[in-house]
Amino acid sequence: MADTMTEETAAPAEESPQADKMVIIAASGDLDKAWPTLILATTGAAYGMDVTVFFTFWGLGILKRPEVGLTGEDWRQRMLAVFHQAGPHKLGLSKLHFAGAGPKIMKGLAEDKGVASVQELLDLAQEMGVKLWPCQMTMDLMGLAREHLIDGLDEPAGAGSAISLMRDAEISLFI
Amino acid sequence: MADTMTEETAAPAEESPQADKMVIIAASGDLDKAWPTLILATTGAAYGMDVTVFFTFWGLGILKRPEVGLTGEDWRQRMLAVFHQAGPHKLGLSKLHFAGAGPKIMKGLAEDKGVASVQELLDLAQEMGVKLWPCQMTMDLMGLAREHLIDGLDEPAGAGSAISLMRDAEISLFI
Amino acid sequence: MADTMTEETAAPAEESPQADKMVIIAASGDLDKAWPTLILATTGAAYGMDVTVFFTFWGLGILKRPEVGLTGEDWRQRMLAVFHQAGPHKLGLSKLHFAGAGPKIMKGLAEDKGVASVQELLDLAQEMGVKLWPCQMTMDLMGLAREHLIDGLDEPAGAGSAISLMRDAEISLFI
Repeated sequence: MADTMTEETAAPAEESPQADKMVIIAASGDLDKAWPTLILATTGAAYGMDVTVFFTFWGLGILKRPEVGLTGEDWRQRMLAVFHQAGPHKLGLSKLHFAGAGPKIMKGLAEDKGVASVQELLDLAQEMGVKLWPCQMTMDLMGLAREHLIDGLDEPAGAGSAISLMRDAEISLFI
Repeated sequence: MADTMTEETAAPAEESPQADKMVIIAASGDLDKAWPTLILATTGAAYGMDVTVFFTFWGLGILKRPEVGLTGEDWRQRMLAVFHQAGPHKLGLSKLHFAGAGPKIMKGLAEDKGVASVQELLDLAQEMGVKLWPCQMTMDLMGLAREHLIDGLDEPAGAGSAISLMRDAEISLFI
Repeated sequence: MADTMTEETAAPAEESPQADKMVIIAASGDLDKAWPTLILATTGAAYGMDVTVFFTFWGLGILKRPEVGLTGEDWRQRMLAVFHQAGPHKLGLSKLHFAGAGPKIMKGLAEDKGVASVQELLDLAQEMGVKLWPCQMTMDLMGLAREHLIDGLDEPAGAGSAISLMRDAEISLFI
């Protein structure tokens, strides 16, 4: 799925003065969704697109600082955090989780096959100028503050900003 | 994720004589998918877009009348209904369901944080003129008749209608 | 959800010299995702659209030859294959799987209601000229070779090709 990683037969990128836009709404915190999200985002950027990823609901987990423990001031928020371990190194799979064995297998395979990790893809996305927007409403809902999230993100935004962007985008995806 | 609910930094809406279109295919009956679906739909409408949500497969559960019991003439349809409790008040989470504790926590948090419930968002969507289309084929498949679904919906439609609409839409999402 | 299967109220198709394009990224191997993917793809083709489905991650399972056993040279790849039984006849449901009882019920209902099976929809898609692209990177990751997949597919491709296509497409969906 990634040109940033494999030989590719695609047409070469054409940078235009007003770059084409891609917007991805990342609402899942699963490893098998984080991967396509970030592979599409970085590949789009490599093809000269102006890419924004809007992280909402469980997708915020992808942006959580690894060293942050249970977040939230409310026991209910902390309980959601207990069961939804997050951060780029801790994502689970939507299938075959097996108490963590599935993700370990998948990550080991990815490493052997030269596929970038979620952390590497996040770093790459930031280097390539992919805009990473955390969703303000779900941050509030889950008790996540700005300092619980990794550095280099854009300002938290709302659904209206995402919609304004998608309206003018050539590609909009909900993952 | 919602401007209808939170302070917002987005560009102001521009109503055009021929409004921009947004189409969402709602194929999941999970609370954590129903929320973004309806938040995006109502926010799009608030921004002057012409919004249609096409409910298919498990997504039909969002439209089920709360008082309707097990639906279907066939034991298999009723069995799907047993395990797929639905209606705007009964949606589960795709993660952390815990026999209903997860959704209860999430809904409690949403209420405290001033986030609208699925029922409120459905009501709001209807008031704002969002078109809600149930999918005829999956209604037949699951043994759901028009009277099992909430009032105020548009006529049941098929994939062809959804495709005709998406072809001319500025934003098309599958959630 | 399908006009290829049910009476339909949609506007008639208009073939243009340069057909409108639809691209679907099929990243899930669940029966309840394979169905909408292939119903939308075949309906789009019936409406005169130029349709491409890009199968990646678990979505590759939809294309797996039924007679192929555990695939992969690595024990980890074979283990993923054990737990992710695939091929058009073996897809599970994202909900209500119940060790296979859910899919059996769903498939039985579909047959009674005249809804095409995944295998029939795949055959139909190929007849209608829908392009089916397996994702090279995830084939490598999962140890799937071209001969493990059904006949009639297009050449394996990467994310860059999918992005180039979506950039010019009227409809792009991630399912």
